Amino acid sequence: MAGNSFGTLFRITTAGESHGEGIAVIVDGCPAGLCLSEEDIQSELDRRRPGQSNLTTQRAETDKVHIMSGVFEGKTLGTPIMLLCYNGDFRSADYEELKNVYRPSHADFSYDMKYGFRDYRGGGRSSARETWARVAAGAIAKKILREKFGVQVLSYVESVKGIKGNIDPESVNFDDIEKNQIRCPDEAAAEKMISLINEAHSAGDSVGGVITGVVKNLPAGVGEPVFDKLEAELARAMLSINAAKGFEIGAGFDGCNYFGSELNDSFRNQDGKIVQNTNNSGGILGGISTGATIYFRVAFKPTASIAKEQETVDKNGNPVTIQIKGRHDPCILPRAVPVVDAMTAITVLDSLLRQKVNI
Amino acid sequence: MAGNSFGTLFRITTAGESHGEGIAVIVDGCPAGLCLSEEDIQSELDRRRPGQSNLTTQRAETDKVHIMSGVFEGKTLGTPIMLLCYNGDFRSADYEELKNVYRPSHADFSYDMKYGFRDYRGGGRSSARETWARVAAGAIAKKILREKFGVQVLSYVESVKGIKGNIDPESVNFDDIEKNQIRCPDEAAAEKMISLINEAHSAGDSVGGVITGVVKNLPAGVGEPVFDKLEAELARAMLSINAAKGFEIGAGFDGCNYFGSELNDSFRNQDGKIVQNTNNSGGILGGISTGATIYFRVAFKPTASIAKEQETVDKNGNPVTIQIKGRHDPCILPRAVPVVDAMTAITVLDSLLRQKVNI
Amino acid sequence: MAGNSFGTLFRITTAGESHGEGIAVIVDGCPAGLCLSEEDIQSELDRRRPGQSNLTTQRAETDKVHIMSGVFEGKTLGTPIMLLCYNGDFRSADYEELKNVYRPSHADFSYDMKYGFRDYRGGGRSSARETWARVAAGAIAKKILREKFGVQVLSYVESVKGIKGNIDPESVNFDDIEKNQIRCPDEAAAEKMISLINEAHSAGDSVGGVITGVVKNLPAGVGEPVFDKLEAELARAMLSINAAKGFEIGAGFDGCNYFGSELNDSFRNQDGKIVQNTNNSGGILGGISTGATIYFRVAFKPTASIAKEQETVDKNGNPVTIQIKGRHDPCILPRAVPVVDAMTAITVLDSLLRQKVNI
Amino acid sequence: MAGNSFGTLFRITTAGESHGEGIAVIVDGCPAGLCLSEEDIQSELDRRRPGQSNLTTQRAETDKVHIMSGVFEGKTLGTPIMLLCYNGDFRSADYEELKNVYRPSHADFSYDMKYGFRDYRGGGRSSARETWARVAAGAIAKKILREKFGVQVLSYVESVKGIKGNIDPESVNFDDIEKNQIRCPDEAAAEKMISLINEAHSAGDSVGGVITGVVKNLPAGVGEPVFDKLEAELARAMLSINAAKGFEIGAGFDGCNYFGSELNDSFRNQDGKIVQNTNNSGGILGGISTGATIYFRVAFKPTASIAKEQETVDKNGNPVTIQIKGRHDPCILPRAVPVVDAMTAITVLDSLLRQKVNI
Repeated sequence: MAGNSFGTLFRITTAGESHGEGIAVIVDGCPAGLCLSEEDIQSELDRRRPGQSNLTTQRAETDKVHIMSGVFEGKTLGTPIMLLCYNGDFRSADYEELKNVYRPSHADFSYDMKYGFRDYRGGGRSSARETWARVAAGAIAKKILREKFGVQVLSYVESVKGIKGNIDPESVNFDDIEKNQIRCPDEAAAEKMISLINEAHSAGDSVGGVITGVVKNLPAGVGEPVFDKLEAELARAMLSINAAKGFEIGAGFDGCNYFGSELNDSFRNQDGKIVQNTNNSGGILGGISTGATIYFRVAFKPTASIAKEQETVDKNGNPVTIQIKGRHDPCILPRAVPVVDAMTAITVLDSLLRQKVNI
Repeated sequence: MAGNSFGTLFRITTAGESHGEGIAVIVDGCPAGLCLSEEDIQSELDRRRPGQSNLTTQRAETDKVHIMSGVFEGKTLGTPIMLLCYNGDFRSADYEELKNVYRPSHADFSYDMKYGFRDYRGGGRSSARETWARVAAGAIAKKILREKFGVQVLSYVESVKGIKGNIDPESVNFDDIEKNQIRCPDEAAAEKMISLINEAHSAGDSVGGVITGVVKNLPAGVGEPVFDKLEAELARAMLSINAAKGFEIGAGFDGCNYFGSELNDSFRNQDGKIVQNTNNSGGILGGISTGATIYFRVAFKPTASIAKEQETVDKNGNPVTIQIKGRHDPCILPRAVPVVDAMTAITVLDSLLRQKVNI
Repeated sequence: MAGNSFGTLFRITTAGESHGEGIAVIVDGCPAGLCLSEEDIQSELDRRRPGQSNLTTQRAETDKVHIMSGVFEGKTLGTPIMLLCYNGDFRSADYEELKNVYRPSHADFSYDMKYGFRDYRGGGRSSARETWARVAAGAIAKKILREKFGVQVLSYVESVKGIKGNIDPESVNFDDIEKNQIRCPDEAAAEKMISLINEAHSAGDSVGGVITGVVKNLPAGVGEPVFDKLEAELARAMLSINAAKGFEIGAGFDGCNYFGSELNDSFRNQDGKIVQNTNNSGGILGGISTGATIYFRVAFKPTASIAKEQETVDKNGNPVTIQIKGRHDPCILPRAVPVVDAMTAITVLDSLLRQKVNI
Repeated sequence: MAGNSFGTLFRITTAGESHGEGIAVIVDGCPAGLCLSEEDIQSELDRRRPGQSNLTTQRAETDKVHIMSGVFEGKTLGTPIMLLCYNGDFRSADYEELKNVYRPSHADFSYDMKYGFRDYRGGGRSSARETWARVAAGAIAKKILREKFGVQVLSYVESVKGIKGNIDPESVNFDDIEKNQIRCPDEAAAEKMISLINEAHSAGDSVGGVITGVVKNLPAGVGEPVFDKLEAELARAMLSINAAKGFEIGAGFDGCNYFGSELNDSFRNQDGKIVQNTNNSGGILGGISTGATIYFRVAFKPTASIAKEQETVDKNGNPVTIQIKGRHDPCILPRAVPVVDAMTAITVLDSLLRQKVNI
C-alpha cells in the first residue's frame, strides 16, 4: 500500500481514477524561486493529449492543468505544488457492459484479486489517464533540469512492430522528433510506421514498439553506486509506465552478442578532458554518470484494448465474447513519448539533487 | 548518498569494499521465529563462489558467512540479522599498477568524478564482491518465501553470446539448473556455451549473455498499481546488479513484433479457477501479480576485466596500455545466477509483505 | 525538501497555502472496501472549524471537504483518496501591511531565510489552516482504527495557562470532552479556563496549555523497538503540529521526581491475563505497546498572533510597531484537540499496519 | 518491521543484541574525503562507557570500535562506514534466572507480545548497550558538523530527581560539562546530585532526571516546514532513546504559563543582522531554524533495573519476587549525555544535508 509516490528529494504523489472527478499530483521538493506558469505545464500535456492525430484515440478528454498551490506571484514557493485536472463528463453507461468482464491483458482481474473490487469505468486507476499526472509533474522537472542544470531530456519512437528508424541519440533534437505524428525523427521510417498503424486500426487491432530515451549534458558523478544505480532508477521509472515491458541501456541486450574486447568503452584525452571513445555503456558506469550522453530503450506492448472480438471470462468465470468499443489508440507510442520524457526527467533530477548533498 | 539499502519492509543494508577488512549486510524485517543457521546461507553463497569451475575466476576468496546478531537459539528474533564475512589476505601491491588507471567500462572514472578518490584495490565498492551481501541476504528471503508462502524463486542462464538454450520457465527446476557448470538447463546449449567461454578465456577475452528469472506459486494480488508495480521493482533490482544492462518481462522486447490480438492474454475458467490462456504478460498485469508464473530476462554485458591489451588513459589523461592481470571470470553468468535469485527473492518478499498490510 | 508527507504504510501528503486556491491531502494506503462518505470526514473537520464559539476565531473559513478520488459507490478502492477544500474569498489587501514584517514568533523570518521569499498572505503554508488536511486525513485513520481494530483515539484539554483539569485518561469519553467549548471534561476547570481565555481576548492577548492524547484498546505488540519506537513516532507527530512545544508520555517529566522503585510498573495476573499494576509508562515499554491505555501530553504555546502592540522589524531590518488585526484564536487548544486526534490516529494506524507484516 | 535505521540522507542502521556476538552500525551518507580514525569515534564512546565512575555500572563492557569499511588511507570513501564492536565474554548463567520473568518497566513483556520470544540475556536488543551504535555513528556526525559546517552539539545534565542546576545553554561549554562525573556544569548542583545518586544506589534504587541538548551556530533555514519540522525530528530522535519519556523545546511546557505577549520572540536589527530579542522558541520557528541557539530538554525516567525486591509475574502469569543482580546504573544520565549528543548530531546533520538540496 502507499505506492502512489515516486522520487525521494523531488517526489510526486498522484491520485485519481480515469472516470472519477479528476486527477491530481502533488509535486514536493521543487526549489523556491522558479518561474512557473500553467502554460509551462500545459505544453507538455498537449503532447500526450488524445486526439492529436488520427493515430491516437479521438476521445474527448479534458487535459487542462490547474495549479492549486505552491506558486505565488508567478514563482514557486518551495512548498508543494498541486496540479489538478477535472475529468470531463462521460457516460457511465458506456462502461456498464464491461463491468464484470476480465478484459485480456488488462488489470481488471489482478485489481479484483488485490482489492476485492474496482472502479470498472475506463480502467479506473489502471487507465493510461494516470499518466496525465506524470507528464504534468515531469514538465516541472524538465524545466528545473533545463534552467538550473542545463540538462536536456528527449525521447522518440525508434521502432513500431519491427519497422525501425535509424536515429543517432547523440544528434537527435526536439524539432525533429515533433515534426511528424508518430514522433519518429527518421522520416522514411515514420511514414511506414504510420501506414502500419492505420492498417492495424482498420483491422481493429493494435501495435507496440520501442521508445528511446536520451539525457544530454548530465555531468559526471550523478547516481549512487550500489542499489540506487542511475540505470536501476531509470529502469524502475520506465517499467512503472503502463504497457512498458522492457528496458535496456546502452548496447543493452544486443551487447550480449559481443566480446568484452569489442564492447569495452576505453577513455582518451580530448583537449585535456577525459572522455570515452565509445558509449556502449549508455553514459553510466557502476551506476554513476560518466558525462557521456545517456540513452536507453523502452519496449511497449501493443495496446491491450482492441476492437476485434476476443474470448475471455467474466468475474464469475462465465465465458464471454467482447469487443472493446470506444476510441482506443491503435498505437500508444507517440503519446507515450512525453511520459518517457517525464519519468526520465523526474528520475534524473532526483539523482542530481542527491548528488548535490555531497559536501 | 545513503544508497546502500534495498527494500522497504524487508530491507537489506550493505557495506564493505572488495579488499577492505570484510563485507557485511544487515537484514532488517525478517520475521521472528524462523529457524536459521549459517548453513542455510552458506549453501547459496557457495553457488556464487569464485573457483567453482574453470569457467569462473580461480581467485581465492573467503566466502564464509558469520551470523553476528538477530538469531538466538537457532531462531530469528525479529531483530536485525547481521551477516559478516572477513576478506582474506591479499597483496595490495597487485593493484598498485592500476591505481591511477581508468580501466575501460569499469567504474574507476565515474567514482573519481563522484567522490574525488576511490579505493582502487580490486574495484573497492564497485567490485562484484559486493554481491556476496546480496546473496547472503537473499538466502534468508528465499527461505521465508519457501517456508512461509510456498513461493519458489529460480534463475538460469538462457543464452551466452548468441548461443541460446531452449528452456520452458514453467517447467524448469533447480536440479536441472545445477547439473552443469554454466547453469543452463538445456544440456546441448550448455556444452556449446562452455566451449565458447573457454575459447574466449584462452583469447584473454570475455562474453556476456542472458539470465532468466522465474517466480512460481506467487499468489495473485501482489504488487502495487502505479509506481511500485512489481515489474518496476524487479527491473530496478536487476539493473542494480553489476554488469546488468537490460530487463524484460514476459514477451518483452519481442512482444513489440506482434499485434495486440496475437499477444493479449485472455482468461478462461479452469475447473472453477480463472486462469490465463497464455502468459505473454509474464505473470503481472497492471503491476499486480495474476497468479501465473512470473518470468523475466536480464542482459549481462561481457565482463569488463579482460587479459587482452587495451588502450586507455590514467587519471592525469596520459595514454596507457593495460592488461588486467589476475584471474577474472571470462563469463560472469553462472555466478550471477544466485545474485538474480537473491534480488528476485528480496523484491518479491518485500511486495508480499506489503500486500499483507491489506486488512 | 519533499517534507510534506507523513506515515509509511498509511501515508498522507498535503498541499496548499492558507490563502491560495485551496488545500488538499492525498491519503495513500487506505484499505479497499471501507465505507466512506464526506460526512464521515466533515464531522471531524467541524470540530476544528474556526468560529465554533466565542473562544475561537470568528473568521469565515470554508471547511467543506470534497472527495476527489479513491471512493467508488461509497466504498474505498484501495487507491489514493484525495480530499480537497477550496479556500473562500478573502481580501489580499488585508495582508498587504504585514507583507514585509517579521511577526514575533511566527515563521515569516525563517521561511525567508530558507526559501528567499514567501506567501505572506495569512501565513501561507505555515498557517494553522494547514491542519485542515491533517484532520481530514485523520478522520479516515480514526474510522479504520475504530471499525477494523476496535481502537479508540481521544484527546482533551488538560490545562490552560496553569488552570489544570482533573481528568483520568482511563475513564474519559468523547461526550464528556465535547460537552463544553474548551473541550476540557472537568467542568469546573473548564469554566475557569473559559473565563481566563475571555480575559486574555479582551486584553488582545493569548494563552496556551496542554492537551492530553489517549489511545484505548490498542493491542500489545505495536511499535518498533529501536528508532521507530511508538512513543518516538507519537512525539514526532505531535511536535509537527503548529505551536506544539513539548511532548511527554506516561509520567513524563514528573516521573523524574520519583525513585525507580516508586515508578516501576510491575505486572500481575488478572484472571489469566498479564496486566500492569500501574501505568507510569503510558502504555508503551521499549517502544512497543503493552496493551495498557496509551496517554501522553502535548504543550501548546500561546498563539503568536495577538492584537496587542508589538515591536519588531521588517525584512530590511527597520523597526516597526505592529498590531495583528483580524480575528485570531486567543487560545488554539479547543481547535487543536481534533488535530491531536488526527495525528495520533495516523501514527497509531501506521504502526498497527507495520505490525501486521509480522508473519 | 525494518525499523533499525535512522535518518534519510545521513542514515544509520544498527544491529546486535546486548549479549550476542557484537554490535554494529552501518553509517550511510558520510561524504567522501573526511579524515576519520578509530580514535575520533572511540573518544565519544569512552564517554558512554560503563564504569567511568562509581555513579555508573561497574560492569566490564568492551567498547572498542573497529572500522570495517568506508575508510581508505585515513579518509572516508563516500561508501558506507561499518563500525563493529565485539561483545566481551559473559556468563549466560547470570541471566538464566530472569529468563521467564517480566521485569517491571522493562521491555520483556512487550517483546514477547510482539515477537513470541526474545533474547533474555541482558535485555537483548532492548538493552542500553544498543546505544553504543548510536554514539559511534554520532561521533562521525559530530565531526562532519564541526569540520564542514562549524556547528557545535552539546548536552548536559540539568536536573536529577528535583535537584536542578542553573545553567545557561547560550554560554555552556564542553569543558564545564566534562569536569564532573554527573556531567552537570553547575558544580554546586552536581555535588548534590552525586550525593543523591549514591544514596539511591546504597538503597538499591535508581533516579532519573533531565538532560538539556544544545545546538550552536546552526544557520537559519534548516528544517522542513510541515511534518519534518526540525523540532519534530529532534523529538523523535530523543524519544527513541531508552528511558526517555519527554521532550520540550525552548520554553516548552513552562511556556504554557505565560501570555502570548510575554512569550513572543520579537526581532531587532543588530548591526545589520536580524536577530531575536528573546529565544523562547528555542531556535526554531515554523519548523525551520532561525539562527539562534537551539536548546531542548529530555526527561529520563529512573533506571528500571533496581536491586530492591520487586513483585511481578513470569511469562506463565505466576507471581515472582525478583532482585535484579549485577551492577546497574543507579542513574543513567551521565552516560546518556553522549547519546543525546549523538542523536542530536545525526538529526541536525540530516536536516542540514536536506537543506543543501535547495538549488
